Amino acid sequence: MPSSLPLCGVVPPVCTPLDAAGEVDTASLARLVDHLVDGGVHGLFALGSSSEVAFLTDRQRAVALEAVVEAARGRVPVLAGAIDMTTPRVVEHARAARAMGADALVATAPFYARTHPVEIARHFRTVRERVDLPLFAYDLPVSVHSKLSTGLVRDLAEDGTLAGLKDSSGDEGSLRRLIVELGGRHGRAEGPAPAFSILTGSELTVDAALLAGADGVVPGLGNVDPAGYVRLYDAVRGGDLDTAVKEQERLVELFALVDAGPQDTMGRNSSAIGAFKHALRLLGVFAHGTTAAPQVQLGDDAIALVRERLRAAGMLTVR
Amino acid sequence: MPSSLPLCGVVPPVCTPLDAAGEVDTASLARLVDHLVDGGVHGLFALGSSSEVAFLTDRQRAVALEAVVEAARGRVPVLAGAIDMTTPRVVEHARAARAMGADALVATAPFYARTHPVEIARHFRTVRERVDLPLFAYDLPVSVHSKLSTGLVRDLAEDGTLAGLKDSSGDEGSLRRLIVELGGRHGRAEGPAPAFSILTGSELTVDAALLAGADGVVPGLGNVDPAGYVRLYDAVRGGDLDTAVKEQERLVELFALVDAGPQDTMGRNSSAIGAFKHALRLLGVFAHGTTAAPQVQLGDDAIALVRERLRAAGMLTVR
Amino acid sequence: MPSSLPLCGVVPPVCTPLDAAGEVDTASLARLVDHLVDGGVHGLFALGSSSEVAFLTDRQRAVALEAVVEAARGRVPVLAGAIDMTTPRVVEHARAARAMGADALVATAPFYARTHPVEIARHFRTVRERVDLPLFAYDLPVSVHSKLSTGLVRDLAEDGTLAGLKDSSGDEGSLRRLIVELGGRHGRAEGPAPAFSILTGSELTVDAALLAGADGVVPGLGNVDPAGYVRLYDAVRGGDLDTAVKEQERLVELFALVDAGPQDTMGRNSSAIGAFKHALRLLGVFAHGTTAAPQVQLGDDAIALVRERLRAAGMLTVR
Amino acid sequence: MPSSLPLCGVVPPVCTPLDAAGEVDTASLARLVDHLVDGGVHGLFALGSSSEVAFLTDRQRAVALEAVVEAARGRVPVLAGAIDMTTPRVVEHARAARAMGADALVATAPFYARTHPVEIARHFRTVRERVDLPLFAYDLPVSVHSKLSTGLVRDLAEDGTLAGLKDSSGDEGSLRRLIVELGGRHGRAEGPAPAFSILTGSELTVDAALLAGADGVVPGLGNVDPAGYVRLYDAVRGGDLDTAVKEQERLVELFALVDAGPQDTMGRNSSAIGAFKHALRLLGVFAHGTTAAPQVQLGDDAIALVRERLRAAGMLTVR
Repeated sequence: MPSSLPLCGVVPPVCTPLDAAGEVDTASLARLVDHLVDGGVHGLFALGSSSEVAFLTDRQRAVALEAVVEAARGRVPVLAGAIDMTTPRVVEHARAARAMGADALVATAPFYARTHPVEIARHFRTVRERVDLPLFAYDLPVSVHSKLSTGLVRDLAEDGTLAGLKDSSGDEGSLRRLIVELGGRHGRAEGPAPAFSILTGSELTVDAALLAGADGVVPGLGNVDPAGYVRLYDAVRGGDLDTAVKEQERLVELFALVDAGPQDTMGRNSSAIGAFKHALRLLGVFAHGTTAAPQVQLGDDAIALVRERLRAAGMLTVR
Repeated sequence: MPSSLPLCGVVPPVCTPLDAAGEVDTASLARLVDHLVDGGVHGLFALGSSSEVAFLTDRQRAVALEAVVEAARGRVPVLAGAIDMTTPRVVEHARAARAMGADALVATAPFYARTHPVEIARHFRTVRERVDLPLFAYDLPVSVHSKLSTGLVRDLAEDGTLAGLKDSSGDEGSLRRLIVELGGRHGRAEGPAPAFSILTGSELTVDAALLAGADGVVPGLGNVDPAGYVRLYDAVRGGDLDTAVKEQERLVELFALVDAGPQDTMGRNSSAIGAFKHALRLLGVFAHGTTAAPQVQLGDDAIALVRERLRAAGMLTVR
Repeated sequence: MPSSLPLCGVVPPVCTPLDAAGEVDTASLARLVDHLVDGGVHGLFALGSSSEVAFLTDRQRAVALEAVVEAARGRVPVLAGAIDMTTPRVVEHARAARAMGADALVATAPFYARTHPVEIARHFRTVRERVDLPLFAYDLPVSVHSKLSTGLVRDLAEDGTLAGLKDSSGDEGSLRRLIVELGGRHGRAEGPAPAFSILTGSELTVDAALLAGADGVVPGLGNVDPAGYVRLYDAVRGGDLDTAVKEQERLVELFALVDAGPQDTMGRNSSAIGAFKHALRLLGVFAHGTTAAPQVQLGDDAIALVRERLRAAGMLTVR
Repeated sequence: MPSSLPLCGVVPPVCTPLDAAGEVDTASLARLVDHLVDGGVHGLFALGSSSEVAFLTDRQRAVALEAVVEAARGRVPVLAGAIDMTTPRVVEHARAARAMGADALVATAPFYARTHPVEIARHFRTVRERVDLPLFAYDLPVSVHSKLSTGLVRDLAEDGTLAGLKDSSGDEGSLRRLIVELGGRHGRAEGPAPAFSILTGSELTVDAALLAGADGVVPGLGNVDPAGYVRLYDAVRGGDLDTAVKEQERLVELFALVDAGPQDTMGRNSSAIGAFKHALRLLGVFAHGTTAAPQVQLGDDAIALVRERLRAAGMLTVR
């Protein structure tokens, strides 16, 4: 990835297709990688939350990552999540990902075990020291239950521990403070942490994040409509914010497919991932819409809602 | 306010100056209103969180609101917070505010008592029925510990219960979904809830919120630098987003004054409100920087940091 | 209350009966006080959470407290909640309660406004200084969203700010640490904070709390079955723990009435308070089962469940 | 474990000693097992939170579990934590634990991935179906961020999915409701879920939990003072509650060693685990007090506090 740092653009978290037995469907995964690269994305994030990394065994993680790296064929860089509870376990995943050809690593703060900010900083420094790949911090309080503070990220950016941040905290105010502390939208190249990539996971406000100075976006919905996010990115980069807002609004409407599953009988995460997967199935990319255990599967009514959203967004022609 | 609905622009939550005895300093408050109106703001929000409404007795709330209404002299509309735990108590405050000349009301969901979304909807409907003034919902999970869902706000917008939303949830993704559901940035005028004002309380991402279709902003920092927020607002409205981002970044830097107070001996809220008040004192608007009991007061070191931030933002000339 | 300090025994939080118009039904309230005192309780806690204090206007609070004090006729001490957001507002309620004849005050940490532990200590000290009545701290994180630490309560006990603690935190481990720090179950009389009352609000584990050294209990369910809680208290005091456990288990079964209301259409608080009130109506104590706005009222099915629980507990004879 | 179900008594979560390089110190671990069994404990829980399971790699987990099983020599049953994010990963750990000779499994609800209660039930059922060992649910909201409801545990107890519950939720009221629903303290043997073990992780209120009908306790502090917890257990079983309370109070005082580490520079978990380990080192059981990365290590001042607490509890003679 040296040639492409700081990473910018659209970097979807690659969904992991599963067959009926719950095993990784590598043929569908290869089709998804082509769907994304053909859509114009600038990178791929394998083994992230939208990849159901929390549900994949170590063996399945390896199968999925190898399939993504192979299918990418070097056309775009591949970031790999090294997602586990604490430093020693994250280091193991990170080493495996490096061996399989990942271009960069993505790790969260420790979870399950409760840690102090001082320990969170040690965590990232230790991972970086032990595995020689660019490291992105993944700020995901909804899963990890702690928020990376602006000060902590800035310190780790300035001392070179972190090559970037994937901010899925939803805290746009703190992200803005970080951008300003690093030099502001225009001044970041000359700021204290050059070559530091800021990628937002807030897929509904990408126009705003890019306007504010973020370098790119990691949109779960980008699995379904990579070209839409690329158009949005290009519009902001080209200074055409009216087009960007319009494209973003279209994607916000499409995003409503994540609520397809009924609230009283399944989780919101299961509904969202199931909806992405069934959308990809309806688009001919995936063979199945299966999600991993113990998630409840989308039923016919929910799948009909997904189809409707795709049609409304102009992504399915009426048959 | 009929002539000015939907309300838009910069509507600062008016700080409440206190004298050394903790009573409302109406002379300072009148100066603040002039400072704000002269700065070009489009409305005033009295008795909000930044007004320390939670700390003011009913008598003090009346003194403060009357002073704001009087000093405003009809130049801009005055919104009044009716902040209390549940419907019957909110209705009492709302009636008092109406009697004192408020142009619109602002109320949160119930707090302290835990309520169901069905009950939160009843709450807003009951307040609206019992007091004949435009009603804004104040979404403030950090104080109220529940989030107003997009669906609930949309329903209350469409049936005319709410004239607007003051969104201080920090959840920009949900706000975007709401805007799109109401017709999108350009389509809202023809959407299902015309004349519905969306004001963001996220003072660090105002450029982004306005770009997305928000109508205005309620910035606590606008007490200190109303003209800055007006410039920011005007720049977005005029399509000059580069200027808007630059102004927003300057305000983000100035905002750092909220952290002036030491973290280990005082609350973050006390630090922020104390910093706004001492900034206003340093600018010659307030006579004192006192905050209400039981808040810890800013010390000399903290005040020096506030002064430094004002200078860095070009708001204090070196003496 | 001088003669009865430290307060111990069963001190129910007195429900506030409302008529169909939502006004305080003082006749029912007088009957409830007799029901409780005849049941053998050792004190009354008016204007607490179970009294719907959050829903009562200041006028209604006064009507309710006066009715309780009058009906109690000095037979047992009356504690009054001074429940509001911050110090200045709490002081106002505390003064009113003192003027109406309350024997002691109960106050929470500040809420809505976020405060630092240093400020929470100032809050209790200021309330105690300004109003000359014994003061109980009310630890209620579910409403107030902060927990009183063991160290803070111990400090305020030792310096005489607090006459006691009403612990509704549900954190029995921290309560145990507090008891041990104050001298332990047997040593508290000689400990650093003599005459400090520890009352638990954990109505399902009263036997355990009394065994551990708590002085008494503030059970919402005690409105319905005061005699049951008095039997439980007497059994522990008399060393008959088998009887105590048996009585506690009966009360746990009765407690299930709080879940009478359907979860998808009303809040858990509304269900619980509504169930207490309808139980009192079925027992002939209250004229109505009405709860305050904006709470949803219990329907016929829910009321049938309440009736069934009363019967199962031997409190209603089949008619 | 068939002969000893339902499991009852004192079942400490076995700390995992680490050498200076962070590897499992099996010699110290064997000494700890003897320390515990000699202290009279009734079972051992390996690979729980107090074992730093979140910090151990799969290889280290295997080394630790094998060492515990081997050192136990069948004297007491060994429960093994199968702690990971979701079903497929938990099943892998569970199979490994079974292969290494564990007598029962302990698993939490899914974490990191957010799941619906329906999915949590599927999770436990799937783990039980795929691995043939008695399964304990581990209710640990502080790590897992969801609480197992009384209804869910009761259903899984009644249908035979669960052999027991390790309740570290701190929610004693809900635990009491569960016990009563299962038949109450005396009636549980004839209740709907015979042979269901309820173990509390609330180590500061064990007397109360046993009085209420819990079968046993999983005390982290039991690593340091197993004999104390056994005396406490025996006292309650023998009906001598005065002795039980006295012993519990001594253990509460000893427990204060968990706060040895400074709050501003290390996590509370690191402080507690470090304190247990250094206490075991001071008692001659462990060679080192090292905790796993990224935890901050206890300094000399903190270790002095640990020593002081051990002395005060009569566990170290003055040298």
